[in-house]
Amino acid sequence: MNMLTNEITEFLQIEYPIIQAPMAGGITTSTLVAEVSKAGGLGMIGAGYMTPNQMREQIREIKLVTSRPFGINLFVPTEFNVVENKVKSKAANQFLNPIRDQLNLPHKNDFDISAINNAHETFNDQIKIVIEEKVSICSFTFGIPSKDVITELKQHNITLVGTATTVREAMENEKAGMDIVVVQGSEAGGHRGNFMDSYQESLIGLMSLIPQVVDNVRIPVIAAGGIMDGRGLMASICLGAKGVQMGTAFLTCVESGAHQVYKEAVLNAKEDQTVLTRSFSGKWARGIKNEFILEMRKHEASLPDFPVQNILTQDIRKASATQGQQDFMSLWSGQSPRLAKNQTVETLIKNIIAEAEKILF
Amino acid sequence: MNMLTNEITEFLQIEYPIIQAPMAGGITTSTLVAEVSKAGGLGMIGAGYMTPNQMREQIREIKLVTSRPFGINLFVPTEFNVVENKVKSKAANQFLNPIRDQLNLPHKNDFDISAINNAHETFNDQIKIVIEEKVSICSFTFGIPSKDVITELKQHNITLVGTATTVREAMENEKAGMDIVVVQGSEAGGHRGNFMDSYQESLIGLMSLIPQVVDNVRIPVIAAGGIMDGRGLMASICLGAKGVQMGTAFLTCVESGAHQVYKEAVLNAKEDQTVLTRSFSGKWARGIKNEFILEMRKHEASLPDFPVQNILTQDIRKASATQGQQDFMSLWSGQSPRLAKNQTVETLIKNIIAEAEKILF
Repeated sequence: MNMLTNEITEFLQIEYPIIQAPMAGGITTSTLVAEVSKAGGLGMIGAGYMTPNQMREQIREIKLVTSRPFGINLFVPTEFNVVENKVKSKAANQFLNPIRDQLNLPHKNDFDISAINNAHETFNDQIKIVIEEKVSICSFTFGIPSKDVITELKQHNITLVGTATTVREAMENEKAGMDIVVVQGSEAGGHRGNFMDSYQESLIGLMSLIPQVVDNVRIPVIAAGGIMDGRGLMASICLGAKGVQMGTAFLTCVESGAHQVYKEAVLNAKEDQTVLTRSFSGKWARGIKNEFILEMRKHEASLPDFPVQNILTQDIRKASATQGQQDFMSLWSGQSPRLAKNQTVETLIKNIIAEAEKILF
Repeated sequence: MNMLTNEITEFLQIEYPIIQAPMAGGITTSTLVAEVSKAGGLGMIGAGYMTPNQMREQIREIKLVTSRPFGINLFVPTEFNVVENKVKSKAANQFLNPIRDQLNLPHKNDFDISAINNAHETFNDQIKIVIEEKVSICSFTFGIPSKDVITELKQHNITLVGTATTVREAMENEKAGMDIVVVQGSEAGGHRGNFMDSYQESLIGLMSLIPQVVDNVRIPVIAAGGIMDGRGLMASICLGAKGVQMGTAFLTCVESGAHQVYKEAVLNAKEDQTVLTRSFSGKWARGIKNEFILEMRKHEASLPDFPVQNILTQDIRKASATQGQQDFMSLWSGQSPRLAKNQTVETLIKNIIAEAEKILF
């Protein structure tokens, strides 16, 4: 056992303590997930927005390519006030229609909120797929699943991974029976995983977050946020983490499903160009500043909650990508875009390990 | 040379790459500074608010106790609009008077802004003292001094240390001739050191900031923000820094001049209790949330600039401390207060090195 092989690599049966973050929305292609696992890390399906059928299909696709372990991530359903969000979504469409004009999209005025009111049902169906298809590792974002769900997954020997942004959230994950906890630092791209503390209170840099969590939980801690290379891996381990979860670093890889426009935006960004916004989805997330974020900023507080706003902006994000312009796409990125490269997953992981070993010895 | 002895320890002629952050406002007592240097680190006088005479006195006091090197920090004067701040300070006093009532302080309505209009003169006098008293290391916050000042200090063989919060600011420090640059992560307590980028853009976590700066400058990088122990030191070094600058860790030490109420507030705080505020000084800074911050939040945008607001709140902060209540004091703290201990400087530094060596070997 050295610093790179520890209880995490043993527990997850992987070669290196590197987890590919389960980025939702088409980024974690079967090839990306399989390549990460084949290269010795842990590939993860970002299934947050997937239907049970889509999940089943992707799990089977990956299993055809590799017999190595991989994981899957689900969003724990969050409550939202239906009446309030109906009103808010009407107002939001008024802000969004001028942007639809710019993209030659038809206006939208009504929104059938009942269509997303079955989040709990979908979640239970997703859990069933995880069990049926025997995915050995399942992680959760935006909260902790119910006791029943946890018990059921544990009965099927599925390793459970929670997400936390503060010490309190990490302790709550441990108490609920999670086997591992991913701590998301303020550097992280994409959605904030806070579920107890407000998003402002929970914006803690990894240099502070890792050791304070490690001192307060007994389960292994995985660090996430701004980690891109062997330096970040070794730093996380020095701080007490047992491994890292990397998003942006895999996002710009050849195998990722991110749109080319999106990849290029990250590859050209600087560390001071990401901002926190809830304009795209109704939930706070870190992404590269663009026209959409700036336009919606003045309405930010009055926008509908997740996932309502996310569905409202779907046509806009899609059209913006199709038209090859980054102005109205969600360009989620952590705070280290200067370290992003367009390379294969195999090269990325090889370089991380080579750099880490150089630091170690 | 191992990971703990490098060009920084050689350059600064210290044993360990640990710099005590130059916290201004009476915290860096002569005993604190001397004890840090005697324990093998670099003690620093926070002279930002000091008169030239106070500086001279403290420098001589420290030299009586130790012949080891120590440094001093100055605030580079920042411009502010006198007419605008005259109006703003009148309004601010209206917000502050109800708080003065709570502390049995007399109301204030007028503010003689001309009294602080000689910041450039004071700065030049401070520089003279640094040269006359032969302080071998001088660091700067809130900007980069003029070419003339830099040239003069260099002629006297004084090592110059700049402060940066982004890659751009670090590059600017290098270009201006700084020998070393301290990069301040978003985790850091106290005033933000940003001087080119806005405070929001420049809130970069150290996990992201260190490697991106290291890749873009040739001068040695010192990491600051949330670092409290050997784990933080080793993590910073893995990320490419040559040493660390620690504030909060020294603030709660026995030898620090922080008020007992302040020390206790930090020792009892959690990682999610610090916020960014400009309510105390007119400049954004990270501190533990208290009544003053919450009361002033709604006026935050309209408050006068630094140092006007800082002078306006002086009586309030002082009375709050004297009365032993933390509600109206500035309780600057980084994001790792759970790791703070009340111990001697010698114990702190010994433990950091012991922990770092345990990680290393």
